[in-house]
Amino acid sequence: MSLKVVIIGGGSSYTPEILEGLIQRQPTFPVSEIVLVDVEEGREKVETICQLGNRMIEEAKVNIKLTWTLDRRSALQGADFVSTQIRVGGLAARAQDERIPLKHGLIGQETNGAGGIMKAFRTIPVLMEVAEEVNELCPDAWMINFTNPAGMVTEALLNHSAHKKVIGVCNIPFNMRHSTAELLQVPPEDVLIRFIGLNHFVFGDRVYVDGKDRTEDVFQKLIQKEFDYSPANIMPLDWSETFIKSTKLLPNPYHQYYFQSETVLEKDLKAYEENGTRAEIVQELEASLFELYKQESLREKPEELEKRGGAFYSQVACSLMDSIYNNKEDIQTVNTWNHGTIPELPYDAVIEANCVITKNGPKPITIGKIPAPMRGMIQNMKAMEELVIKASISGDYEDAYNAFLVNPLIQDEKKAKVVLDELIEAHKDYLPQFNR
Amino acid sequence: MSLKVVIIGGGSSYTPEILEGLIQRQPTFPVSEIVLVDVEEGREKVETICQLGNRMIEEAKVNIKLTWTLDRRSALQGADFVSTQIRVGGLAARAQDERIPLKHGLIGQETNGAGGIMKAFRTIPVLMEVAEEVNELCPDAWMINFTNPAGMVTEALLNHSAHKKVIGVCNIPFNMRHSTAELLQVPPEDVLIRFIGLNHFVFGDRVYVDGKDRTEDVFQKLIQKEFDYSPANIMPLDWSETFIKSTKLLPNPYHQYYFQSETVLEKDLKAYEENGTRAEIVQELEASLFELYKQESLREKPEELEKRGGAFYSQVACSLMDSIYNNKEDIQTVNTWNHGTIPELPYDAVIEANCVITKNGPKPITIGKIPAPMRGMIQNMKAMEELVIKASISGDYEDAYNAFLVNPLIQDEKKAKVVLDELIEAHKDYLPQFNR
Amino acid sequence: MSLKVVIIGGGSSYTPEILEGLIQRQPTFPVSEIVLVDVEEGREKVETICQLGNRMIEEAKVNIKLTWTLDRRSALQGADFVSTQIRVGGLAARAQDERIPLKHGLIGQETNGAGGIMKAFRTIPVLMEVAEEVNELCPDAWMINFTNPAGMVTEALLNHSAHKKVIGVCNIPFNMRHSTAELLQVPPEDVLIRFIGLNHFVFGDRVYVDGKDRTEDVFQKLIQKEFDYSPANIMPLDWSETFIKSTKLLPNPYHQYYFQSETVLEKDLKAYEENGTRAEIVQELEASLFELYKQESLREKPEELEKRGGAFYSQVACSLMDSIYNNKEDIQTVNTWNHGTIPELPYDAVIEANCVITKNGPKPITIGKIPAPMRGMIQNMKAMEELVIKASISGDYEDAYNAFLVNPLIQDEKKAKVVLDELIEAHKDYLPQFNR
Amino acid sequence: MSLKVVIIGGGSSYTPEILEGLIQRQPTFPVSEIVLVDVEEGREKVETICQLGNRMIEEAKVNIKLTWTLDRRSALQGADFVSTQIRVGGLAARAQDERIPLKHGLIGQETNGAGGIMKAFRTIPVLMEVAEEVNELCPDAWMINFTNPAGMVTEALLNHSAHKKVIGVCNIPFNMRHSTAELLQVPPEDVLIRFIGLNHFVFGDRVYVDGKDRTEDVFQKLIQKEFDYSPANIMPLDWSETFIKSTKLLPNPYHQYYFQSETVLEKDLKAYEENGTRAEIVQELEASLFELYKQESLREKPEELEKRGGAFYSQVACSLMDSIYNNKEDIQTVNTWNHGTIPELPYDAVIEANCVITKNGPKPITIGKIPAPMRGMIQNMKAMEELVIKASISGDYEDAYNAFLVNPLIQDEKKAKVVLDELIEAHKDYLPQFNR
Repeated sequence: MSLKVVIIGGGSSYTPEILEGLIQRQPTFPVSEIVLVDVEEGREKVETICQLGNRMIEEAKVNIKLTWTLDRRSALQGADFVSTQIRVGGLAARAQDERIPLKHGLIGQETNGAGGIMKAFRTIPVLMEVAEEVNELCPDAWMINFTNPAGMVTEALLNHSAHKKVIGVCNIPFNMRHSTAELLQVPPEDVLIRFIGLNHFVFGDRVYVDGKDRTEDVFQKLIQKEFDYSPANIMPLDWSETFIKSTKLLPNPYHQYYFQSETVLEKDLKAYEENGTRAEIVQELEASLFELYKQESLREKPEELEKRGGAFYSQVACSLMDSIYNNKEDIQTVNTWNHGTIPELPYDAVIEANCVITKNGPKPITIGKIPAPMRGMIQNMKAMEELVIKASISGDYEDAYNAFLVNPLIQDEKKAKVVLDELIEAHKDYLPQFNR
Repeated sequence: MSLKVVIIGGGSSYTPEILEGLIQRQPTFPVSEIVLVDVEEGREKVETICQLGNRMIEEAKVNIKLTWTLDRRSALQGADFVSTQIRVGGLAARAQDERIPLKHGLIGQETNGAGGIMKAFRTIPVLMEVAEEVNELCPDAWMINFTNPAGMVTEALLNHSAHKKVIGVCNIPFNMRHSTAELLQVPPEDVLIRFIGLNHFVFGDRVYVDGKDRTEDVFQKLIQKEFDYSPANIMPLDWSETFIKSTKLLPNPYHQYYFQSETVLEKDLKAYEENGTRAEIVQELEASLFELYKQESLREKPEELEKRGGAFYSQVACSLMDSIYNNKEDIQTVNTWNHGTIPELPYDAVIEANCVITKNGPKPITIGKIPAPMRGMIQNMKAMEELVIKASISGDYEDAYNAFLVNPLIQDEKKAKVVLDELIEAHKDYLPQFNR
Repeated sequence: MSLKVVIIGGGSSYTPEILEGLIQRQPTFPVSEIVLVDVEEGREKVETICQLGNRMIEEAKVNIKLTWTLDRRSALQGADFVSTQIRVGGLAARAQDERIPLKHGLIGQETNGAGGIMKAFRTIPVLMEVAEEVNELCPDAWMINFTNPAGMVTEALLNHSAHKKVIGVCNIPFNMRHSTAELLQVPPEDVLIRFIGLNHFVFGDRVYVDGKDRTEDVFQKLIQKEFDYSPANIMPLDWSETFIKSTKLLPNPYHQYYFQSETVLEKDLKAYEENGTRAEIVQELEASLFELYKQESLREKPEELEKRGGAFYSQVACSLMDSIYNNKEDIQTVNTWNHGTIPELPYDAVIEANCVITKNGPKPITIGKIPAPMRGMIQNMKAMEELVIKASISGDYEDAYNAFLVNPLIQDEKKAKVVLDELIEAHKDYLPQFNR
Repeated sequence: MSLKVVIIGGGSSYTPEILEGLIQRQPTFPVSEIVLVDVEEGREKVETICQLGNRMIEEAKVNIKLTWTLDRRSALQGADFVSTQIRVGGLAARAQDERIPLKHGLIGQETNGAGGIMKAFRTIPVLMEVAEEVNELCPDAWMINFTNPAGMVTEALLNHSAHKKVIGVCNIPFNMRHSTAELLQVPPEDVLIRFIGLNHFVFGDRVYVDGKDRTEDVFQKLIQKEFDYSPANIMPLDWSETFIKSTKLLPNPYHQYYFQSETVLEKDLKAYEENGTRAEIVQELEASLFELYKQESLREKPEELEKRGGAFYSQVACSLMDSIYNNKEDIQTVNTWNHGTIPELPYDAVIEANCVITKNGPKPITIGKIPAPMRGMIQNMKAMEELVIKASISGDYEDAYNAFLVNPLIQDEKKAKVVLDELIEAHKDYLPQFNR
């Protein structure tokens, strides 16, 4: 059996990580062909990555054919797995997502609030196209999406495209598991966190080590601040004792946007004045990464890549593909259809949940009712996500406004309009659906 | 058939209104006895009201026995209807509910946000006691609650007391109906608004005049600002065209706290600096009302009462009692069990909905799914209400904190604690459950 | 305002009743035009009815233009109400629905069991066509369906046709109300029964007289056999004391098919041997009715019509049209969308429930949970109905078999096939969808 | 770590099997103590079993302390696992469960229909007592119930006793998996059937071999009759091609009672006339088994035991305990809380479903909607089960009658009473709740 993996957005600076993962997993996950796909604007990058990748393959002495192309349709022929990691509009668009809300006193972040909504508006139509092509050209392929906002993208594709083999992944649950393991000084593979909720709004309510409930120990450590599980790209956590004791939930780093909004906003405004947006910082970081990638002597994934937030995304994706291919029936946390897992969310909503991973895709483990302290907020986030998805596809201004209106980081009938209008104008090249 | 009505909180300045209502409805709703009940602190007021009431009865030449007492249990014997309109801690407590949040940059309002939650904490335990007494002493009596937060109070009593004949009323739907009628220049009795949601978070999604759908006309008037249906105690509305067109919903005046938070907060802070809190204004207003009530020459409800916000509450209550007694099967908007009316809210939640009023109580008219723009926010408000009710009864600090944490007017993990602590301290005499 | 009513299946022997209703209601429901529509096979009958109708109109001295046509499309132009009362395949088809199941030891009945399913298969496609025409030609018209199986037909039209103004009516709730009134010796208009369930599988769980709960009195009368509320076309009731006391529900006459199956089957078999099927009896009855209708001297609805089962159907339909037209907001029992009224049934299912009747159609009054003794059977009946509707439209043999398989009057994996095959063959001219 | 297992009903003829399982699993599941508990009537049997068990232990050279007692409370002290396999009233009671319904023309079976309901009535109160004792004396112990009707018993204990660590097991899913493996000629451990439904009313809708969907192959084999997966104690399957093709579901052997009722009833009546009830056959079988068990030379589980229906129950139980103890996270099919797994069944219902088995018990894998052909029947069975459980605990005659009334194998308002009365009389010694 030989496997073909197609990487849409192959020119991403993260690609060396996924290549490393595929090379290392050869014994159990025998990929024989990888195609990197990108768009014209990414030609140079994808070529650089492809050359680096081929050096990595040579070094590892594995038998993988790695190529790149701008012709997505030809690449998709015969694919077994299609990973998607695109950034419509590039980091320049991200900078707008961050800068414009900030200008109006709102949190500017690329996966939450106004910025996250705009990213969905730009991304969903493009990935809908990809999904339709996958369904036409390689209908048995699993599409593994890591493009943010990963939960909304996955729901859009599952409910509105013809392709139903779509899974969304995020590194947050992975990182929380690893950080918790570190905190408890146990191997990560022994830790199981019960995750409840939505991508970037997921909580853990139980932590098990080899099946033993260690939740209270984790809470104690959190309260005593012995702990930091934030990924590299967001500021350290600082949750109060009362928050932990009352909610009895493990928050994820993005929850600070919702429950520490003022503090975050102040910091972001200050940081913006001093260093510009996160997008601008990342742009520099990326430029220096590509300088590195071009060095002929580099024959492996450079350590510098991990500094870039979002590390381990690829590890998550490789694990997932491996478990699907081998029908491992192990438990991983992915974005998939609810279908009753959490009865208080819509049946066809996409949630982030622990799933048994099989050759037939992820099968979520029933959760039941949402812990009372967060039921309403999770329901509100999901309802907001539905509005975003609807607007992404319809391009109706009113749908878009409604999404802004009820987003907890905006929720102001006048600012919703002002910021939305400015963002639509700024991104107009990437929002054909709003310009019909 | 002779009817006995007991008014808990009979010393309220609103009582003359309900007395007027009961006097006027004598032909169809033959009340023969009214007992005003109050607590020691309200002795003077209730006596004043009772004297005024007796003058009104005399003037109207009806045959009603009106008395007052501080002995609630004896009053309840044989009651057919028990109305509850109490203010635990009086206007002084309200002033704290308004002042303390404002001090921390949060909206201070007596039925929404931190203030509304604290009012629930003070009120629910007292009304739970009343409900248990009603259930013991006059188990067939209908309890009509107008004490705010009316929705939460009603849910607490229905789900946690033994008495199941409890209905919550509010003047908001009544006022919205009347203002809409005025706007369309039609009689209010011809107007039917379909209400969806929760007390003080209710929306109208359809306006019918004699069954004809006039919703679009109303939206046009709202957009053109020809309209004001705010009750006297809150500032005029000012909803943007985009808000109306996008949500396709009729907001209620309290929605400004949620969707125009910054503006409201600024105005409130300014008003507070200039005039003190609303509680303090009301205190003066009330004092002057009682001066008036004491005048022997006053033999009817004075016009001045209508200036006091919350007017028509009593009219709503009288209409309701009349329709129950006469099994009118007319449609009124009250707070009652959901039981599937809105499937996206919990089965046993209390909602504010159009009901057919029968001798067996209100029977809600099925609504179905919540209009998409507001599904999540209404679900979040209800989940928050459940936390408030739980904390009101349990007195657990953690339940209380959770309620503060997820309230959209607070939603800050640190302020939640600071403001909660200060309010618990300020109200400690009225919060025995938190001091166990 | 002048109103146009179109009666599809105008050649039915019941039509004089609906004509009488429309004539009598002229003062409040001012119909100016009635068109009777039928198919070629019914030409003679519809002509006879039209002549009788015109004599009735003359006699009543009202101003109604009554005509007949075989051209349905032209008739529908400008219609305000369209009533549908058709019998695809006529009484000959009914005879097969009754005879074939009986032959295999199964209950043969035209609205329940195998017969009812077959009637749905024949009827639904034809009424789907009508609904599409209504939607095209008179999109504001309300379609009032009395064709059996009325619940399934209504669900098929509401969920699968473009026309959404469809209401199903049945005389069972009307008859139960009237019989209960007679039993309690009170006027029918004072009685309100709370109905729960599905057409021909509806129960009453509470009986109110002027709002006073008289349920227990009714049960006592039922137990003491002082009571009979069966319509003319089905045998008298004989419910045991244990059944009434345990279920605490008022059954409808069709429930005997489900809970007294053996007895009914025996009687039906005996009756069949002696007199042929019910269809054959009705055929004779109908022939003699038409003889009567032809008599020039007949200028009103003849009394003989009431002997024919199904009386009062038309009264139900006239009441409904009147309340819609006049936005009466009274309570009537009709078949409409569930939408949460009974949360344990699917959201988009059609149920038979008490509704407030408005110009915008029927608005069901929330019921909540089904009384425990019947929850499962009602859910099973609804699931079975969905299979029937699916098969009616798809014409898939497997869907049809599944419907037969789980119908409680069949529920045998081998007989299901034998009887289904024989019925499909017998009705093949009326089942184009199964012969594709 | 040493483990203590208590076997309630240790005198069962099946016990040697579970003992064998515990002996064989010593390396991974280190049981150090087993206590067999029985009642006075079972003294001789439990003693015989204990002696045989000790010979088996000796032969296997393992270190397990095996004892027996009639003192349940003392046995439970310190238990880690409590298995329950009791038969209240013994095989004599079973004979009544089979004989009395047959006499009235109804299927007589000990886990379905009238017989199954009566077994629940006798069993649930006794196991409720056990559960309360477990909760008091060894609150951390998992209770593994194999007493039939296993699904109803488990629901009763989980929802009405204080002990929440209860799991129900059945050999049907195990047998279906093994038979399917045999049919496809693959190892059973490679086969995963997706099970949907309730104990003894469970269907498989998908068959995977190493994750590959082989469902169609299985259906083909079934249609071609190459297949038999019925357990030893019920007659061979004979499902028609139409049934398999239309439902697209794998039935379990007990479904013949529901879909081939007439055939089964005939066979049962014939068998009864010739050989008496199944209970009587089993009585003989059991007597001969105990003769065997008494032989000093017997030092292992005798092969003859497998002939007795219900084989592999113990293997199922041992697998389950092993996976719990070792937090294996493998997939097993057990009876546990629904909690959304199948959204169309009540949240707190017990279902039979594939679960991930962890140290914290079974976590069901989300199923979603029930395949359409069986939704209604599964809902009806569950509603019927709830009535049975209610009656088992309340002892109200009306609850019991309602359960009989809606059971698809009875469903006759008059027979329900006759058969129920006769069974209550026959079992009166074991039904204290009905004699209060």
